[in-house]
Amino acid sequence: MFIGVDVGGTHMRAALVDDRGRILHRRKAPTSIFLGPGQAAERLILECRSLMDRAQELGGKVAAVGLGVAGKIDRREGRILFSPNLASMKGYLLAPQVEESLGLPVVMENDANVFGIGESLRGAGLGIRNWIGLTLGTGVGGCLILEGRLWSGDDLGFVGEIGHMIVSPEGPPCVCGLQGCLEAHASGRALREGVEAAIAEGRLTGGGLYERRREGGLTAESVSELAKRGDPLAQSLFDRMGWALGLALANLFTALGIRHAIIGGGVSAGWDLFVGPLRESLAKHSRMLDASEAVVLRSRLGDDAALLGAAWLARHGLAGKYQGRR
Amino acid sequence: MFIGVDVGGTHMRAALVDDRGRILHRRKAPTSIFLGPGQAAERLILECRSLMDRAQELGGKVAAVGLGVAGKIDRREGRILFSPNLASMKGYLLAPQVEESLGLPVVMENDANVFGIGESLRGAGLGIRNWIGLTLGTGVGGCLILEGRLWSGDDLGFVGEIGHMIVSPEGPPCVCGLQGCLEAHASGRALREGVEAAIAEGRLTGGGLYERRREGGLTAESVSELAKRGDPLAQSLFDRMGWALGLALANLFTALGIRHAIIGGGVSAGWDLFVGPLRESLAKHSRMLDASEAVVLRSRLGDDAALLGAAWLARHGLAGKYQGRR
Repeated sequence: MFIGVDVGGTHMRAALVDDRGRILHRRKAPTSIFLGPGQAAERLILECRSLMDRAQELGGKVAAVGLGVAGKIDRREGRILFSPNLASMKGYLLAPQVEESLGLPVVMENDANVFGIGESLRGAGLGIRNWIGLTLGTGVGGCLILEGRLWSGDDLGFVGEIGHMIVSPEGPPCVCGLQGCLEAHASGRALREGVEAAIAEGRLTGGGLYERRREGGLTAESVSELAKRGDPLAQSLFDRMGWALGLALANLFTALGIRHAIIGGGVSAGWDLFVGPLRESLAKHSRMLDASEAVVLRSRLGDDAALLGAAWLARHGLAGKYQGRR
Repeated sequence: MFIGVDVGGTHMRAALVDDRGRILHRRKAPTSIFLGPGQAAERLILECRSLMDRAQELGGKVAAVGLGVAGKIDRREGRILFSPNLASMKGYLLAPQVEESLGLPVVMENDANVFGIGESLRGAGLGIRNWIGLTLGTGVGGCLILEGRLWSGDDLGFVGEIGHMIVSPEGPPCVCGLQGCLEAHASGRALREGVEAAIAEGRLTGGGLYERRREGGLTAESVSELAKRGDPLAQSLFDRMGWALGLALANLFTALGIRHAIIGGGVSAGWDLFVGPLRESLAKHSRMLDASEAVVLRSRLGDDAALLGAAWLARHGLAGKYQGRR
């Protein structure tokens, strides 16, 4: 059996997966990155231990752990180099820490890349040769599947970081330090910060979003919920999300000469709220590709994509570098 | 022997190339696309005939012709589907026309793609596994060399159309019909139109650029010449070009996880005028890649890159689809 873990900016998810790629058990915990990298790593180790116990109960044994982690990473060292959404993890040797504590081999990859592996193997990417993957969560992750394999570029520790492509140079500030990134328009954080900005600028002085924020319960989910109920600010934030996603995909389709994208991540639960503006923006910003040829799909596996991808990696990628399907 | 032709928005260039890739003779003529596609094709055929005569004088014979053409093309049919800079060629069956007139096999590719082949084989791309190619001419062409081969995407008739990535959604109009494309900031046409706009808006009422325009002699070269002499508007247009190129490359490096680019095309003669702003913009807009790791090179072959690439294609690509180096 294998453990796949997806470490995001808000939650960490872990799954026990058998050697046929079936998920036997799932766990979810807050990442609580504000408590520091050591605490987050401890929690991650705890979740893995609990899955190891579960494996034993089932009469099995965990052979390896695959970690999908948001940010730029050094795969060989197992170190996090830079992560806008796990900022305090910068420089942290996460994989060796987990490896030592659990006594199991650990491989580490970017979280959106393991999403790409999972969707390729069992999800919406099955049978699509070239596609762009996006995960909408606290931040926006990305991956590229080219010729059926996870594209790894020049092995610089990052690849497919589509969330940090700039879609609007004068746009909102991004947590990465740049301005106008896709992530600053299309992430869970962007939804929350859009509400904060409206309050700070005096554009929002009451109503559901205002109350949620006042009560400290302002989350991406609450923005989504209010958008569905017709709240104009919440809807405008999802419109902006769709606009930015459509523009980024148009740019990438134009540059790569491809036409498929798959979108997952927790915030993609608001699909119906942003897919209209997305398709409109994609058509408006594409000149080389006929809009009718573009195919934008929703993740078929949801949260399981990254878990399955990470577990697959634990099984197949133990050389320390994911090689993909041949 | 082989003929390679580069059909751009302003000029067409043709070369006679021997089977070892040496250029034996070059020709250059205006494309004069305003006279219609038939006239441009006739001129192209005339240039090829003259090179066939030249081959005979040298005791050789032309075996095939390779065409590099700006725009979206149907390689199998040899048709131009859409070309912002050869607008009247839309729908034109250029390759069959040339083939029939000359009685020689003809292959057609995008002009920036043949540039990529040429620079890969003999130029600045030699030995670089992954790189982005840009050609600055009347428009901005682009290509991607991935894993040492010309990337062809989903074979949609366009690929690497980096000139039509949108760098600034509120930016200047592009000849393709979109707004804020890289091409609208970084092409020969953008330089000219930048001057036109300044005159139309009353920001430019005299001086060298104004006079050139009045005399009908406003070209990208004249803007470059005046920028070198310190003309502030001309300099600002090259600053804008560098800014847009740096932003587009930053976005692509971020998405592709690579770090090399090669820039060619006639307008890249103004290298010293835009490379400073380009590097500054690239550093400013990159968050995943350390700016010190980015390598932006100037084409080593100049106009010959596309000619060599087109001739190489004539020799190796007769199956109708460029397969690249293995």
